[in-house]
Amino acid sequence: MVNKVKEAWAQGRAVVNGWLAIPSAYAAEVMAQAGFDSLTVDMQHGVQDYLSTVACFQGMQPHPVTPMVRVPWNEPGIVGKVLDAGAMGVICPMINTPEQAQQLVWSCRYPPEGTRSFGPIRAGIYGEAGTYFATANRDVAVIPMIETKEAVDNLEAILDVPGIDGVYIGPSDLGLSYGMKPALDREEPEILRIYERVLNEAGKRNIAVGLHNGSAGYVKKMIGMGFKLCTISNDSGILLQAASAAVATARS
Amino acid sequence: MVNKVKEAWAQGRAVVNGWLAIPSAYAAEVMAQAGFDSLTVDMQHGVQDYLSTVACFQGMQPHPVTPMVRVPWNEPGIVGKVLDAGAMGVICPMINTPEQAQQLVWSCRYPPEGTRSFGPIRAGIYGEAGTYFATANRDVAVIPMIETKEAVDNLEAILDVPGIDGVYIGPSDLGLSYGMKPALDREEPEILRIYERVLNEAGKRNIAVGLHNGSAGYVKKMIGMGFKLCTISNDSGILLQAASAAVATARS
Amino acid sequence: MVNKVKEAWAQGRAVVNGWLAIPSAYAAEVMAQAGFDSLTVDMQHGVQDYLSTVACFQGMQPHPVTPMVRVPWNEPGIVGKVLDAGAMGVICPMINTPEQAQQLVWSCRYPPEGTRSFGPIRAGIYGEAGTYFATANRDVAVIPMIETKEAVDNLEAILDVPGIDGVYIGPSDLGLSYGMKPALDREEPEILRIYERVLNEAGKRNIAVGLHNGSAGYVKKMIGMGFKLCTISNDSGILLQAASAAVATARS
Amino acid sequence: MVNKVKEAWAQGRAVVNGWLAIPSAYAAEVMAQAGFDSLTVDMQHGVQDYLSTVACFQGMQPHPVTPMVRVPWNEPGIVGKVLDAGAMGVICPMINTPEQAQQLVWSCRYPPEGTRSFGPIRAGIYGEAGTYFATANRDVAVIPMIETKEAVDNLEAILDVPGIDGVYIGPSDLGLSYGMKPALDREEPEILRIYERVLNEAGKRNIAVGLHNGSAGYVKKMIGMGFKLCTISNDSGILLQAASAAVATARS
Amino acid sequence: MVNKVKEAWAQGRAVVNGWLAIPSAYAAEVMAQAGFDSLTVDMQHGVQDYLSTVACFQGMQPHPVTPMVRVPWNEPGIVGKVLDAGAMGVICPMINTPEQAQQLVWSCRYPPEGTRSFGPIRAGIYGEAGTYFATANRDVAVIPMIETKEAVDNLEAILDVPGIDGVYIGPSDLGLSYGMKPALDREEPEILRIYERVLNEAGKRNIAVGLHNGSAGYVKKMIGMGFKLCTISNDSGILLQAASAAVATARS
Amino acid sequence: MVNKVKEAWAQGRAVVNGWLAIPSAYAAEVMAQAGFDSLTVDMQHGVQDYLSTVACFQGMQPHPVTPMVRVPWNEPGIVGKVLDAGAMGVICPMINTPEQAQQLVWSCRYPPEGTRSFGPIRAGIYGEAGTYFATANRDVAVIPMIETKEAVDNLEAILDVPGIDGVYIGPSDLGLSYGMKPALDREEPEILRIYERVLNEAGKRNIAVGLHNGSAGYVKKMIGMGFKLCTISNDSGILLQAASAAVATARS
Repeated sequence: MVNKVKEAWAQGRAVVNGWLAIPSAYAAEVMAQAGFDSLTVDMQHGVQDYLSTVACFQGMQPHPVTPMVRVPWNEPGIVGKVLDAGAMGVICPMINTPEQAQQLVWSCRYPPEGTRSFGPIRAGIYGEAGTYFATANRDVAVIPMIETKEAVDNLEAILDVPGIDGVYIGPSDLGLSYGMKPALDREEPEILRIYERVLNEAGKRNIAVGLHNGSAGYVKKMIGMGFKLCTISNDSGILLQAASAAVATARS
Repeated sequence: MVNKVKEAWAQGRAVVNGWLAIPSAYAAEVMAQAGFDSLTVDMQHGVQDYLSTVACFQGMQPHPVTPMVRVPWNEPGIVGKVLDAGAMGVICPMINTPEQAQQLVWSCRYPPEGTRSFGPIRAGIYGEAGTYFATANRDVAVIPMIETKEAVDNLEAILDVPGIDGVYIGPSDLGLSYGMKPALDREEPEILRIYERVLNEAGKRNIAVGLHNGSAGYVKKMIGMGFKLCTISNDSGILLQAASAAVATARS
Repeated sequence: MVNKVKEAWAQGRAVVNGWLAIPSAYAAEVMAQAGFDSLTVDMQHGVQDYLSTVACFQGMQPHPVTPMVRVPWNEPGIVGKVLDAGAMGVICPMINTPEQAQQLVWSCRYPPEGTRSFGPIRAGIYGEAGTYFATANRDVAVIPMIETKEAVDNLEAILDVPGIDGVYIGPSDLGLSYGMKPALDREEPEILRIYERVLNEAGKRNIAVGLHNGSAGYVKKMIGMGFKLCTISNDSGILLQAASAAVATARS
Repeated sequence: MVNKVKEAWAQGRAVVNGWLAIPSAYAAEVMAQAGFDSLTVDMQHGVQDYLSTVACFQGMQPHPVTPMVRVPWNEPGIVGKVLDAGAMGVICPMINTPEQAQQLVWSCRYPPEGTRSFGPIRAGIYGEAGTYFATANRDVAVIPMIETKEAVDNLEAILDVPGIDGVYIGPSDLGLSYGMKPALDREEPEILRIYERVLNEAGKRNIAVGLHNGSAGYVKKMIGMGFKLCTISNDSGILLQAASAAVATARS
Repeated sequence: MVNKVKEAWAQGRAVVNGWLAIPSAYAAEVMAQAGFDSLTVDMQHGVQDYLSTVACFQGMQPHPVTPMVRVPWNEPGIVGKVLDAGAMGVICPMINTPEQAQQLVWSCRYPPEGTRSFGPIRAGIYGEAGTYFATANRDVAVIPMIETKEAVDNLEAILDVPGIDGVYIGPSDLGLSYGMKPALDREEPEILRIYERVLNEAGKRNIAVGLHNGSAGYVKKMIGMGFKLCTISNDSGILLQAASAAVATARS
Repeated sequence: MVNKVKEAWAQGRAVVNGWLAIPSAYAAEVMAQAGFDSLTVDMQHGVQDYLSTVACFQGMQPHPVTPMVRVPWNEPGIVGKVLDAGAMGVICPMINTPEQAQQLVWSCRYPPEGTRSFGPIRAGIYGEAGTYFATANRDVAVIPMIETKEAVDNLEAILDVPGIDGVYIGPSDLGLSYGMKPALDREEPEILRIYERVLNEAGKRNIAVGLHNGSAGYVKKMIGMGFKLCTISNDSGILLQAASAAVATARS
């Protein structure tokens, strides 16, 4: 099974990512038809748990989108479970030190590169027969989140941990840790300088950089800036905004 | 408990209605914040059943939207269940004869106006203590769908059935029964003449007319034409369209 | 598998029945430990559907209570499904004519006594091997509800339909059909005379009579009057009353 | 979207069908990898309802199996819902008269061939854009069950109803209606003569004949006899038999 | 959004708290009408997980009860998830050291007071627009459980951790750690002396003290003793006791 | 409540164990009838979470099988939850050091043998009244997995941790840690020597040894070798293999 996200990165292309907060396989089917390259089930802040993640994966499986998960925490049990369920990428929040990054890599890789336990209950279905194990360590994208001042201070050490495929920036938490208010689509020069630094350091190591965004317009700009995994809001945010606009139009 | 839809109709105002196909209380919470006057769980064509309807009702309860259901069929068992769950309006598909309309009314009204069985398990929670029974026959909106040539031919007889509060037009099925393709936001003169006839006959009897629509712009026009219950697409349709547009913008 | 409800009736004993409105196997486990002879999942007015009924049955299975269902309507599809799921008794609302009673019996009995389709997916698990079919027509209790003036007027004809094991009175709907308000634990002489008449006519035919009640005290009295299937409120009603009393005590 | 079952029938090939009683998308994914041509969710005797059917469909969607449903009853509401959910075939129990067969066809076909209401919420996803309506009346397989003496007596009249693609024999109920015990894989000459008669009359009309079976060996024989839709037990039956055999081997 | 529990504490009033073990939004709706000031979903010993907690929160949202959670463990992932879901208070078991208490506070507070990640998916709905972040650190109640000898020995140090709003005593585990049997509503002098010591030390620091209780009568007494967060049994315990009593009365 | 697994071990008998990956109470009911001594819900690699585990336990409760769980990770929160739900045995993956084994024991035992928190919400139902606490520390089986080279190197120290009832070998992970491919039913001499060593050392300490297997034939052999807890594949694996074989036979 090819990981199209990693394939895109290998070719230097940016990936447009959808974000699933609604715990419904049907909602995932809908999002899977909207043209995203990948869909990430948000188990941290979304209204999602393990079985709703499985359901969303089932909904998106027939569609050409790469399934990923943001796990709620850097905990080996849940990282293993979402990989077994078929996640081709794991975005992990609050990775602030190289030790935490190392733990994440270990949880995502089979020995000898890590300590992942073998049992790809759904993931094994979708690889060609017998090949999941052979390619999983290469196919699965490990993506720690860089979203605190501590992580930025430790940036090079984190990026130097072998096995990291990408990093993902959470602008709200990043801002919070620098004393700003939580917000997406930030324009503060201090934040933009951090973005540049992350893009630069990651680029040296052939690591992709992702960013959570609030609007498609900002995504477009950030793709231009060099981000390679750009999320547009999430399913419920898009729905709320579009439904509100429709009601306003209808009443106008 | 006041039915704000019937209140609006009494004041001559049009209601903008949302349509729930996603079987998720959280998705319903999102839609309940978008500004709709009412939200209708679509048990006919939506991915909904009885318990998902209850969940959607729970999600929308704290918000100022009137809960309604489109039942899958004119069957007393399910009509009773959704009313007990708290539906303030019942939209029923494929009412083609006055006998069918009469059956629907009976299912929605307690004796002596109908044959509804008493047991408002959730509906009773939200009325003031002990008052649900006293006002339910007045508060619940009974809304048969007019969506076939047969129904149009029987229009006056259907509208004359006592207890009907509104009728709701399904443009796809209506078109199909006249040999056209299924579509919303129709502009065929033959169809628009039917709309005018329904508005005219219903208006004589103080019955509101609703219409299922595909876009907010068409809703605006139809409100101007006199429709009083105007639905904008549904949650999954709005989501798909908005997400697709966002992806296109991001990639542009 | 012995139907302890029918066994009790054969011995002239009254059955104390619990009523499940909460769609949770765990809540059913709790109710199954409270000492009831039987538990009835209320698919009509309870917050229940087919799969929640199966879950409740799974919760009560290890406990010595007889599983029954009140179906939402006299519809062969759902009657068959709950029997296949393991219901040992079917209470059916709004049986007003002998024809409706006959239809109910047919739905509950295998040929030649009825038209039930064979496939006892869970029911077959709990009989001794291969014996479910042999005894099902004898074991399953068919219990139409007598809850309208029409049913009372047709009482003898309904009771004469072969295959009826019991009848169950719904006091709220019965009162409604006689122009009274909905209520349980009624004391109107007109209603009590109906109870006596039903007990008398059913007694002649060796048919048990059940009654829905609001309080344990009234149940005690009605057992004395001759009722053989006496329900005490329902799980959510008992919970609400007891929790409210506890809060009041705590604050007193 | 091509209906591979109808394609096989057009080419004279027999279809091996799986039967889903376990209400789990994951179990459906497993069955979808076992090599069946089609999988039928059994909403009549299986532990299934509408939303579990949708989940099973989501589980099987990426796999090359045709999704079908056995509905619980010949009721237009549920027939419409499963078709909207994506069923490519509807098997309906207890069709005993041409009038019942006609009603089933009407429920499955859009006008002018029937009265199906338009709103293919999931079915529309998987057709090529905009083509679901254009081909649905041709693609959906309508398959009444012939499983009573009454149906056999009315065989020609039922088969003459326009729009029937296949018939499906339920051996347990068929046997019951002839005074035998319920059983699959029957060998009674009287039953085999009925099979021959159904194969013969259906063959004249280019209608496929299906059969529910208990074992793969019997399926093989029945394919040889001319049956074109042969089901092997169901998921839970296969699991129980295989697990029991494994335990016995382990303990031997 | 006002946290009525903290408001009551600020005014010196005791809060009567309900405890939810039944994983059902409907059961939560019932409990929310019984008059409790707050309802706590018990994710530790209750039959609850994250999505059932969300469902219970949806059920209680329209009612004037403050939603809280007892998390299963002092783990940042789940603490964050329940806060994002709308919990206004977090009760955390087995806090035995100031370090553990500090970790809990960090998980519950946004920077600079803690390390909570921003994304209040449901919590943000119910604050006034844009204000959730501004007030969350002040509104959310952080409530470690004191339920071991180790915790009692570390009492002052735990209470001195900045950001603790209350502590909650679990009598069964407390007794176990002192070599007694598990029980609620304890009367052992040794335990009552601990209660007094906790009330005294917490009182000095303006920290409220809560207690888990088995009966309303004991709650009344403990409110008198100075406890400010008094739970009465739980939903399933109240139901079991009341249903058992009703059955006994009916049979008496 | 007697733990039949521990009873069998006390008598020197081997236990044949089933493994549940399908998140369905009905599938668990099916497996519970196949003759296994015990059934283990696999929360690590199976498609299971806490509430599906509860559902599976409810499905198996009336049948004579001992309920166990493989937890996803050695985390006190989830270990406590599955014990409260009624697990009579806890299999825990990736126990590589005596410290990890000690933590597992603590999580499973009430004081003074451990730190388990009291609240056996379902477990308490099924013990004789009031006796769960009295016997739980003796009845619950604590079973760390030995499945890495590190664990084998630490074998004696792990086995010496007081409170361990059994160990369970995961052949895939064990092989991985020795540089082999993941596989069950291994025949490599190096692995078989490890098996012998574990059997020998555990035997000295009266600790049972379990093994995960792929086939019933291998189980038979391993029982002969001295293994006392032998799992045969899992529910979905048995289903896939048997269904595939049936399809092949039908088409042959």
